[in-house]
Amino acid sequence: MKACAIMLRLFFCSWLILSFCSPQVSFGQQIYKDRKAPVAARVEDLLKRMTLEEKIDQLQNKASGKTDEIDKIFNGKSYGCTHEMNMSAMDCAQMYHQLQTYMLTKSRLGIPILTAAEGIEGILQNNCTLFPQALAQGSTFNPSLIKKMTEAAGSEAEVIGIHQILSPVLDLARELRWGRVEETYGEDPYLAAEMGIAFINGYQKYRITATPKHFVAHGSPSGGLNCANVSGGERELRSVYMYPFRRVIAETMPLSLMSCYSSYDGIAVAGSPYYMTDILRGELGFKGYVYSDWGSVDRLQTFHHAVATQEDAAKMSLTAGVDLDVDGAYTTLQRMVESGKLDVKYIDQAVRRILTVKFSLGLFENPYGVPEKVKKIVRSNANIAVAKEVADESAILVKNSNNILPLNMDRYKSVAVIGPNSDQAIFGDYSWTERDTKEGTSLLQGLKEVLGKKVVINTAAGCDWWSHDKSHIQEAVKAAAASDIAIVAIGTRSTFLGRSPRYSTAGEGFDLSSLELPGEQEELLKAIKKTGKPMIVVFISGKPLAMPWVKDNADAVLVQWYAGEKQGRTLADILTGAVNPSGRLNVSFPRSTGNSPSFYNHYLTDRNEPFDQPGSPEEPKGHYIFDRPDPLWSFGFGLSYTTFKYNSCIVQDSLMAPTDTIKVTLEVENAGLRDDREVVQLYVVDKVSSVATPIKQLKAFKKVFIKAGQREKVILKVPVTELGLYNEKMKYVVEPGEFDLQIGSASDQIYYHKTITVSR
Amino acid sequence: MKACAIMLRLFFCSWLILSFCSPQVSFGQQIYKDRKAPVAARVEDLLKRMTLEEKIDQLQNKASGKTDEIDKIFNGKSYGCTHEMNMSAMDCAQMYHQLQTYMLTKSRLGIPILTAAEGIEGILQNNCTLFPQALAQGSTFNPSLIKKMTEAAGSEAEVIGIHQILSPVLDLARELRWGRVEETYGEDPYLAAEMGIAFINGYQKYRITATPKHFVAHGSPSGGLNCANVSGGERELRSVYMYPFRRVIAETMPLSLMSCYSSYDGIAVAGSPYYMTDILRGELGFKGYVYSDWGSVDRLQTFHHAVATQEDAAKMSLTAGVDLDVDGAYTTLQRMVESGKLDVKYIDQAVRRILTVKFSLGLFENPYGVPEKVKKIVRSNANIAVAKEVADESAILVKNSNNILPLNMDRYKSVAVIGPNSDQAIFGDYSWTERDTKEGTSLLQGLKEVLGKKVVINTAAGCDWWSHDKSHIQEAVKAAAASDIAIVAIGTRSTFLGRSPRYSTAGEGFDLSSLELPGEQEELLKAIKKTGKPMIVVFISGKPLAMPWVKDNADAVLVQWYAGEKQGRTLADILTGAVNPSGRLNVSFPRSTGNSPSFYNHYLTDRNEPFDQPGSPEEPKGHYIFDRPDPLWSFGFGLSYTTFKYNSCIVQDSLMAPTDTIKVTLEVENAGLRDDREVVQLYVVDKVSSVATPIKQLKAFKKVFIKAGQREKVILKVPVTELGLYNEKMKYVVEPGEFDLQIGSASDQIYYHKTITVSR
Repeated sequence: MKACAIMLRLFFCSWLILSFCSPQVSFGQQIYKDRKAPVAARVEDLLKRMTLEEKIDQLQNKASGKTDEIDKIFNGKSYGCTHEMNMSAMDCAQMYHQLQTYMLTKSRLGIPILTAAEGIEGILQNNCTLFPQALAQGSTFNPSLIKKMTEAAGSEAEVIGIHQILSPVLDLARELRWGRVEETYGEDPYLAAEMGIAFINGYQKYRITATPKHFVAHGSPSGGLNCANVSGGERELRSVYMYPFRRVIAETMPLSLMSCYSSYDGIAVAGSPYYMTDILRGELGFKGYVYSDWGSVDRLQTFHHAVATQEDAAKMSLTAGVDLDVDGAYTTLQRMVESGKLDVKYIDQAVRRILTVKFSLGLFENPYGVPEKVKKIVRSNANIAVAKEVADESAILVKNSNNILPLNMDRYKSVAVIGPNSDQAIFGDYSWTERDTKEGTSLLQGLKEVLGKKVVINTAAGCDWWSHDKSHIQEAVKAAAASDIAIVAIGTRSTFLGRSPRYSTAGEGFDLSSLELPGEQEELLKAIKKTGKPMIVVFISGKPLAMPWVKDNADAVLVQWYAGEKQGRTLADILTGAVNPSGRLNVSFPRSTGNSPSFYNHYLTDRNEPFDQPGSPEEPKGHYIFDRPDPLWSFGFGLSYTTFKYNSCIVQDSLMAPTDTIKVTLEVENAGLRDDREVVQLYVVDKVSSVATPIKQLKAFKKVFIKAGQREKVILKVPVTELGLYNEKMKYVVEPGEFDLQIGSASDQIYYHKTITVSR
Repeated sequence: MKACAIMLRLFFCSWLILSFCSPQVSFGQQIYKDRKAPVAARVEDLLKRMTLEEKIDQLQNKASGKTDEIDKIFNGKSYGCTHEMNMSAMDCAQMYHQLQTYMLTKSRLGIPILTAAEGIEGILQNNCTLFPQALAQGSTFNPSLIKKMTEAAGSEAEVIGIHQILSPVLDLARELRWGRVEETYGEDPYLAAEMGIAFINGYQKYRITATPKHFVAHGSPSGGLNCANVSGGERELRSVYMYPFRRVIAETMPLSLMSCYSSYDGIAVAGSPYYMTDILRGELGFKGYVYSDWGSVDRLQTFHHAVATQEDAAKMSLTAGVDLDVDGAYTTLQRMVESGKLDVKYIDQAVRRILTVKFSLGLFENPYGVPEKVKKIVRSNANIAVAKEVADESAILVKNSNNILPLNMDRYKSVAVIGPNSDQAIFGDYSWTERDTKEGTSLLQGLKEVLGKKVVINTAAGCDWWSHDKSHIQEAVKAAAASDIAIVAIGTRSTFLGRSPRYSTAGEGFDLSSLELPGEQEELLKAIKKTGKPMIVVFISGKPLAMPWVKDNADAVLVQWYAGEKQGRTLADILTGAVNPSGRLNVSFPRSTGNSPSFYNHYLTDRNEPFDQPGSPEEPKGHYIFDRPDPLWSFGFGLSYTTFKYNSCIVQDSLMAPTDTIKVTLEVENAGLRDDREVVQLYVVDKVSSVATPIKQLKAFKKVFIKAGQREKVILKVPVTELGLYNEKMKYVVEPGEFDLQIGSASDQIYYHKTITVSR
């Protein structure tokens, strides 16, 4: 009742202000309500009608709540954005329906609210389909499958009534200690761009804006510590970190984008007009609105100490170009405008951008989800099947001695399923469910489904992910000894937005100072190895770890980045041969913690000495005295159950103009006995470049399905404009001269070298 | 005879050319030979008289040889520079005397040659005094002592006839995997500047130009791999890497400087006019000549692939501002000028700079050493005493449980002296003698000198520095078991310019991928610990390593960076109390390989979460799940055998204008029983800064000798201009507002916090 009284008073006051103070505003010509009017005209019309307070409300996020609390929470006001994380999909859909109705009918001007949700691996709303995490999406090397995935996830968002997805993460996995590596598409800018574009295109099938983040370079923090300053130059920024953003903005025109917490070369990005306006809008042509990362405006004061007060933080961020603040600092804007400390034009600019999104998505006409379809669409069998498909294509087989995989189940009457990750469905950070729940299929469950009752399964965790408790290793040894073969699932455990930190070894805020296997996992493996039983290692993780012992000693190694709710079934299907592994490494495995960075696309000068030999006590070789600097398993690598032969490779034209497109035609043959997918990869090397360029760069790839015994023609295209660099003057140019095209099945498995020459 | 004939012919030809082809040159007005004429006039006069070939010869280094080969090597020509590394000081002095006589009398124009030598830890000429390596110089925190040291080293250079010293290294030890950490003054830019200035001032007492290197940022290569690209921005460049160069150039006006091999943000520095001219000469005001690092011009082609030919490399580097090439590429210059590919003005500019140095040093009048004084001066007792003094002040005591040190020799009848570094005098890279020689005093020798025959010394290496050979550990255990106390000397071994790589774990080109103790050294320590005997660890090394076990388990830990020929005597004197340890850590010790960077002056945001607890299996704390991000022992730290009390601290004025100087007056008391030196340190924190600034920065220090029971007044001054930052526009400004002054005895032992306010 009280809320109603306040509402009434508010309406009355607003009416008074608008009637007397702003006589130019006439409610008679409500252009903004005319769906046929151009968006820009609607925005300007609405803007004119808004009070300063109403404008500032549009620059803020307001967390939703229960259905019966809407009036209390929103108090007759519309906000820019809202979010909700702890409701079931159905409850949320109903609440959002009510909330939008409230916005359209109870707020003074009837401005709908943007409903935001995390959506990196499916929608973060209880009971939505749990798709594989971004790192697993990247290892599919299959952008059209990822588009299919976000179409499925988007269908769930649509019925719930969600209009903004706080993904994709376009940060790169170049600093492996960072806890959020799992949220990236891997270490390569080109792959991240291709995946980001596909991801956004899927969601954009609906009235949803995807939100690429974290702009910019957030993923390489000093020491791997979350939110730390990123050390780097302008050239590295443009060549590496900005590349996926540039491509994604140009090719998907996203309506929103998220700034980052970190500073780059000492400049807090979220408070910098250089980054948030000059580069983002000027250089990259971004047209949407910028959504602050949670609390990142306040952090200009409290974390960066770049300003002394919350007001200054708000002013710094708003004038830099961060339009919407998710955590409170923008409440100070009104006072600043009224006291003349802030020009209202910055407010108007940000409001304009946010309203443009709302009009563009059609929310003034229809901001609603389809609650009645939630039951049918959300976590439908069809969507779960897509999750399974992504999982199937994401697993990477990196070792398979004597073709021990797929398992010949005629030979094994008993299987030991061992290890801390053997009976866990592990979701990545930003999934709606915590680990230890039974929302997904674990490896053990998957194997039970696949093997049925014919095979005896002996189980033991052996150890946990974390501690130095060795007391259960003997149980695992017994299980292995009693079985014909041991499958040992090791790896990391992610956290659920830090809410469930117990035993976590990955996730946001959970950074590692060591990349060795945590706890006693390697000890467990060594103990199992001693039983003499064949040992299959399944590495389920949110990041690569340094595992030279595993490479040397396991009979087979299957890598699975957190792969959604069907993860265990996928593993079982691959182990037994129902599914062929077709994932490829999107991030290289380091040899050791100190052997980093280990990404494949380092500069020519970065591992410059011959390192054929790791050195010996007598005569060390190479630059690291005791080790080689190259990775244990390199980017692009992954084995198959079949054999692909590259029969021919033709480059259409070897003399190219800067505006041409390189066209490479290959014939690839599936020379094995199983149908499977191959990932054909093309890398480019600039043979002479005025500034440093990577030793090779992925510039095209294609995942092709080839039936056993069949041959397929594969065409890869690279626009010559992709061969450029940021020269001494920081100008993007393609330098004339020779380029080496390297075509193969991994960054370190090149079958063809072709030279092309770019003319002036 | 043949050489003479060639010479005669050359003279005749030159005379012909000059007489007929260049009639404007008159030998009658030889301004350049007039010692009273201004240097610039002499340079221009000489330049006019030179042929293109003669000019280009001045841009090159020519390695010297034996005395009787001078004519053959130099063939009547003068060069810019020469060097010699494999002669005794006496032979070299005689050869240089003959060489300069040759230059003045046998080259056409009588241009002396610059005689260059490595001089980082004394002169790299056989039999010169072996002073402590740069890292040990830095840990003295005593710039006037380092000036005294280079005065001593310079006296040796002077008599040999050396005029250019290829030091100091102004790179910073922020990437500990790098093999050349030992050549730096440590991790801090301010300390590096103070030490570099002192070092140069000592040499500049003579007609010697010191050569700061490696310009710029060379010491933080990607992955710690020598010569790799340095990732960093313009702000980091200026705030961190350029700081020592800026100070050194402004305060010592060096006549020469060395470029680096590496690229910064993708730009090969030695080929960049931006770095080598705009910044170096424009922004920093450098007036001398640039000496290329060995082969770095050629490397623009062969290593960086920035150009396609050696000619292009030469042109790129010369026009960028590298005046003298040490390895051959500049031989191509003549052809390029003649073919019109290169403007001769670049040649003239470089020649002008080199001749200016030769005139400024007075070499046209007297380029000679004093061979007859070599025997008296080189490695004189006085110079060796200076080496000892530096060693004495450089050792750092980081642990001393129950004041076990200095050893009470009434209590110990027998001592075990154990470990791979126990009977080795280890010199740093760039010393004239290889390791394994007996040119210096080892710890064992030092202890024998000090303890005499009253104490039984039991010895055993136990293990080497490198291998996993554990077979000798039991011998060491026996030695310890048979003794009252065990002194275990562990650490690294440097190489001698890569010529003696066997067992090396540090030095140029000897980078580490792991910062743990190499080989079986920790196993050795654990075995000794088990004997129950008190265990003193002496860590003799060219860099810090991760030694948490040592910190937890040793009774005392004494750190010695390679400390010259008296190193072992210094250690023995400190262990037994004849010398008090007064070194302070100039580089922080990391907790583990992956716990890096570990330097103290990180940005505020770089280790941002509370990390009071290292976490537990139940509930991890802080950002690294399993560890704290701060160092094991931090910058500035070092124990003493006495106790210093800080009685008072007064800041003269707390409201400062940007042109003021902060003056802090302390009273420090030696409250113990031994005379000793304290290093009073002042750190500055910018409380609010528009761009990121370090969590604290050393901005003043003073090493003061205080007698037991005495009090000393210590005054520290900091110009307010030192409190600046490179703002968003990359302009150096001191931002008004509050600064926290932290005064104490280490970066993590602060006794006083004082706030000052800088006004507009």
